[in-house]
Amino acid sequence: MKVGFLGPEATFTHVAVQSFFEKEEHLAYTSIPACMDGLAEGEVDLAVVPIENSVEGSVPITIDYLVHEQPLQIVGEIIMPIRQHLIVSKKNAEKWKDAKVIYSHSHALAQCHPFLHEHFKSTRLEPMTSTSAAAKFVSENEHENIAAIANEYAAKAYGLHIAVSDIHSNTYNRTKFVILQRENTAKEYGLLKKENQKSTFVVMMPENKAGALHQVLSAFAWRKIDLSKIESRPMKTGLGNYFFIIDVEMGYDEVLLPGVKQELEALGFTVKIIGSYSTYSK
Amino acid sequence: MKVGFLGPEATFTHVAVQSFFEKEEHLAYTSIPACMDGLAEGEVDLAVVPIENSVEGSVPITIDYLVHEQPLQIVGEIIMPIRQHLIVSKKNAEKWKDAKVIYSHSHALAQCHPFLHEHFKSTRLEPMTSTSAAAKFVSENEHENIAAIANEYAAKAYGLHIAVSDIHSNTYNRTKFVILQRENTAKEYGLLKKENQKSTFVVMMPENKAGALHQVLSAFAWRKIDLSKIESRPMKTGLGNYFFIIDVEMGYDEVLLPGVKQELEALGFTVKIIGSYSTYSK
Repeated sequence: MKVGFLGPEATFTHVAVQSFFEKEEHLAYTSIPACMDGLAEGEVDLAVVPIENSVEGSVPITIDYLVHEQPLQIVGEIIMPIRQHLIVSKKNAEKWKDAKVIYSHSHALAQCHPFLHEHFKSTRLEPMTSTSAAAKFVSENEHENIAAIANEYAAKAYGLHIAVSDIHSNTYNRTKFVILQRENTAKEYGLLKKENQKSTFVVMMPENKAGALHQVLSAFAWRKIDLSKIESRPMKTGLGNYFFIIDVEMGYDEVLLPGVKQELEALGFTVKIIGSYSTYSK
Repeated sequence: MKVGFLGPEATFTHVAVQSFFEKEEHLAYTSIPACMDGLAEGEVDLAVVPIENSVEGSVPITIDYLVHEQPLQIVGEIIMPIRQHLIVSKKNAEKWKDAKVIYSHSHALAQCHPFLHEHFKSTRLEPMTSTSAAAKFVSENEHENIAAIANEYAAKAYGLHIAVSDIHSNTYNRTKFVILQRENTAKEYGLLKKENQKSTFVVMMPENKAGALHQVLSAFAWRKIDLSKIESRPMKTGLGNYFFIIDVEMGYDEVLLPGVKQELEALGFTVKIIGSYSTYSK
């Protein structure tokens, strides 16, 4: 089995894929749409892309591409803690406090802002295309006293030293990745377990009227179905038009979820269930 | 007056600042938190950062930092169309079809995926830290037949030629930026106009119980207040805890919005109004 992911190597998406699909073949793609197209065209069997609160990669693009361009199914969700470390070459292990430049992805620099503000207030911060690219750069320039912010996997991959671990702010410390498949074959790959099941609804409304969302939520509320996420996203048809992504904390069953779908359709909404799957926390 | 923004120069945030604050002094920051801290500490009078569907910069970080770290006020919103162009050096104006490498920000490469898939299927795509950095790189290597994807401002800034304009996919074609201020002084800066007013609520719930969001929305629905956006965001306190960002299509008034706030507080929710402001579309 081949698993595509948002590359390059040693990024957080790669760590998620490595830890979840240990024995499978992995294929890096340069963008989220390219990864999803690769899956749709049969180059890989599954694809792993970030969907929420990510360090690398554009998460709105995952949702929009899934809804508008590639009708793939979500067959699993991986939640990874995001741990950022200050990394230097082994030569500079004792001199990290005097680092001249700190390299990382702009999102990682933002996540570690309180640490950087305290310890490196006047040090130059240089954004790179990924945390992994920053670690690679530090390893290729070990004669200079520079540092990278990256994960431990990148430190290991490029033979670097972790000078200070866990320098990220607590506010943004996990990323959700979805595992995608052409059709829902979660059972085939053994991805569906009994606990922690959830389902993702996409609900489009005929017009942006007051109370429409309230009406949508009523269909869940009176059935006492817990929502774990709701997000409005603009449709491509115009400024005032939105659709909703709703995550509910239950797998697909024979009664409640089809009931919600039918009720909303009768009220004029368009409803798609883009996945019923299990959540795995690492 | 000094306006801070998420840099570097010639990015989409810079274009938004240039077109909106034509005569003011502009100061580029390397990250969204740094920009917001700069404003809080008085280095600038206003700050402009992306908040939705952005090309460059992490948008969840804007919301989370605003809610958890820096209690700044939103005093305006700028909506910019995002237009991406294929840009080459003037020397290579006729040979763009044979470009060996295409450089851009990874989000811009993703936004132009259908165009690239059709015309440059086997060309190497190389992510850079910003669309503007990509244009700069092309201008510094004009002897090589390479291309960048960037906005027209970057093409002009680096003396490059637009080979193909508007190559972005229609799905993701605008970015919302917020104008931030230490206190709500929108009137002082002439930012508040009568039309297109909106307000942004942050609602935190005591526990993640079924129907809590439904209860929140009831307070808006029975008053027939239109919501233009709703998004759940994880709290930093744990996996199951969420808060909600709700945009309503009206400015702060004396009756309806305080009524919503009081009603929700009586039900046990924590409510903050982080801005009542006008929207400007460019």
